[in-house]
Amino acid sequence: MVEYVVSDKYDASKLWDYYTARFLSDGVNHNDLIEMRSKTRTWDDWLDVWCELADRYEARGEEALKRGSEVTAGEELCLAGLYVHYGQFLFWCDPEKKNAAQRRKVDLYRRAAPLLLPPAEWVEIPYEGTVLPGCLRMPVGRPKAPCVVLIGGLESTKEESYLFENLCLRRGVATFAYDGPGQGDVHIDLPMQPGFERTATAVLDHLLTRPEIDGERVGVLGRSLGGYYAPLCAAHEPRFRACVSYGAFYDFGNWEAMPAVIKDGFQFVTKTGSWDEAADYLKSFTLAGVLKNLKCPYYILHGERDAIMPADRAGQVADETGGGGGETELVLIKDGIHGVHHVAHIERPKMADWLAAKLS
Amino acid sequence: MVEYVVSDKYDASKLWDYYTARFLSDGVNHNDLIEMRSKTRTWDDWLDVWCELADRYEARGEEALKRGSEVTAGEELCLAGLYVHYGQFLFWCDPEKKNAAQRRKVDLYRRAAPLLLPPAEWVEIPYEGTVLPGCLRMPVGRPKAPCVVLIGGLESTKEESYLFENLCLRRGVATFAYDGPGQGDVHIDLPMQPGFERTATAVLDHLLTRPEIDGERVGVLGRSLGGYYAPLCAAHEPRFRACVSYGAFYDFGNWEAMPAVIKDGFQFVTKTGSWDEAADYLKSFTLAGVLKNLKCPYYILHGERDAIMPADRAGQVADETGGGGGETELVLIKDGIHGVHHVAHIERPKMADWLAAKLS
Repeated sequence: MVEYVVSDKYDASKLWDYYTARFLSDGVNHNDLIEMRSKTRTWDDWLDVWCELADRYEARGEEALKRGSEVTAGEELCLAGLYVHYGQFLFWCDPEKKNAAQRRKVDLYRRAAPLLLPPAEWVEIPYEGTVLPGCLRMPVGRPKAPCVVLIGGLESTKEESYLFENLCLRRGVATFAYDGPGQGDVHIDLPMQPGFERTATAVLDHLLTRPEIDGERVGVLGRSLGGYYAPLCAAHEPRFRACVSYGAFYDFGNWEAMPAVIKDGFQFVTKTGSWDEAADYLKSFTLAGVLKNLKCPYYILHGERDAIMPADRAGQVADETGGGGGETELVLIKDGIHGVHHVAHIERPKMADWLAAKLS
Repeated sequence: MVEYVVSDKYDASKLWDYYTARFLSDGVNHNDLIEMRSKTRTWDDWLDVWCELADRYEARGEEALKRGSEVTAGEELCLAGLYVHYGQFLFWCDPEKKNAAQRRKVDLYRRAAPLLLPPAEWVEIPYEGTVLPGCLRMPVGRPKAPCVVLIGGLESTKEESYLFENLCLRRGVATFAYDGPGQGDVHIDLPMQPGFERTATAVLDHLLTRPEIDGERVGVLGRSLGGYYAPLCAAHEPRFRACVSYGAFYDFGNWEAMPAVIKDGFQFVTKTGSWDEAADYLKSFTLAGVLKNLKCPYYILHGERDAIMPADRAGQVADETGGGGGETELVLIKDGIHGVHHVAHIERPKMADWLAAKLS
């Protein structure tokens, strides 16, 4: 058992400020945020306060099921899961509570899945002695559709992509969101580890057996740390025909300057014993030498003021691609922080448009 | 030409506080609100600041059209219209600017209409020498569907119901939102006037000619002042099979206590010369003696702290119905202000569920 030496607990009020646009963009209600913020006196309250709100969503979901309102039930249970997700978010300080919340989130999402519009099919893909869990959603009225594979980051998982999935689905693109090693509930069995591209091969092998997926038109999008995984996967898997980094990520050369909360996170997902051990473990995670093999069109969205991955590294990612004849488009957002969530309502539809165009 | 003697201009910062939950619930982006709020020093800035943001939505909508991204174009133009709508919102002090914005809103919405998912069909129903404009949207994949007729209020119009329409459409119910006398662009030709129920007859006469509408399953929902119109229409039109007041409204007995901004509004929409003239004109607008004729199921949502229509009048509305064998359900929201927008994410889906159940 690893001892987690969390550097310190975080200032909840600063985290609310930093993450408000993200929470809202991914489906949290503004009035709930006001209430939760007023109840979160210290970081210790974080998980409990989110879960208290999640309880209400879950109760309303169950009531809706009882009265036969399945659409409402699906939305309420999905949001209950999202709130629990944000409860465990960054809660590295208490792995037991965090993992319990992780499991509850998955349980809530799985109850919501068949009720969503369009529904989500829960899929488990065998992978190195365990499974990769994922959610497949097909656009309404399309018996065969292109598909985008969605990869999360350090703390974004498949259950968090619901609203982005809807953007793709409305544009005729199916979505398959999954968690790999170090992510979501998979982390409990498998830490973050080299070779994430092998998960993409397993996912593609599965998707290409399905008659409803157009195997010639599958793309991949990764968010945050997933912005590293997506081009890594696409460089190794020519079966991907389009790639998006929703936030570029070159390597861990910026480790020393990363915020404490992020270093704690990487220590947690790598299951190492200290920041130093984590930094050492992460040295092999790099796109150096990889991007020349990326041969499909590539779209990068990045914030100019990203505190985790400086904008010049996003430029480096863009510069090192293109050798294979693919086109690379780098969209730098002025004053944009990591994830550029303040412009999510503008930039997310544009990413979905780009994917729909490249995969159509 | 009537001289509008507006009592005073309003405190923009108080209006932001009061209406934030409404703006967000109807589709305004939170970051835009922060920006607009910082730019609105006095009430004079209100319309211009909204329109400056609307310009950006319109420009992005046009860009999206150019690159062939119709889904994004529809959403951006629809939101541009919504922002212009809120620009002219309560802007009684300058009828010329208000009416110009009203027309621009309609133009933006009409450009968005065919691009929405599902699309909105613009319909003009002949009515007493002019037309009632409305928007018909059909749920995806249903060749024949039940339908709910949506009526706005003093300052909510057909273009503002987009997100509520989506809730109904996802539950298999078509929507027809229209403006009557005193509302939206119709106000330019026709002031608020007695006999609103005649507009419902004209609307039903039209809808029942359409093969895609199940004429045995048409309901009506009215919002705010529309909470007066909806039961008025349903009491006169037995062809309505379900009725919702999204905010109850009995009569103008509470006139003296109504906020100045609301009195100004009623003076504007009645095209009278003073508050006294407006109050006199409005005396005949009452549900007294009307509700006994309401024979369909009736759902009332109301806030306990509604400053325009006290909660006891909502109770009176509920008490006076039911004689005809219909069932009436009154949902009173604790601490709820007019429109109860702080719980829109909970109560709107429930209204849509109720309509879908009663019309299925």
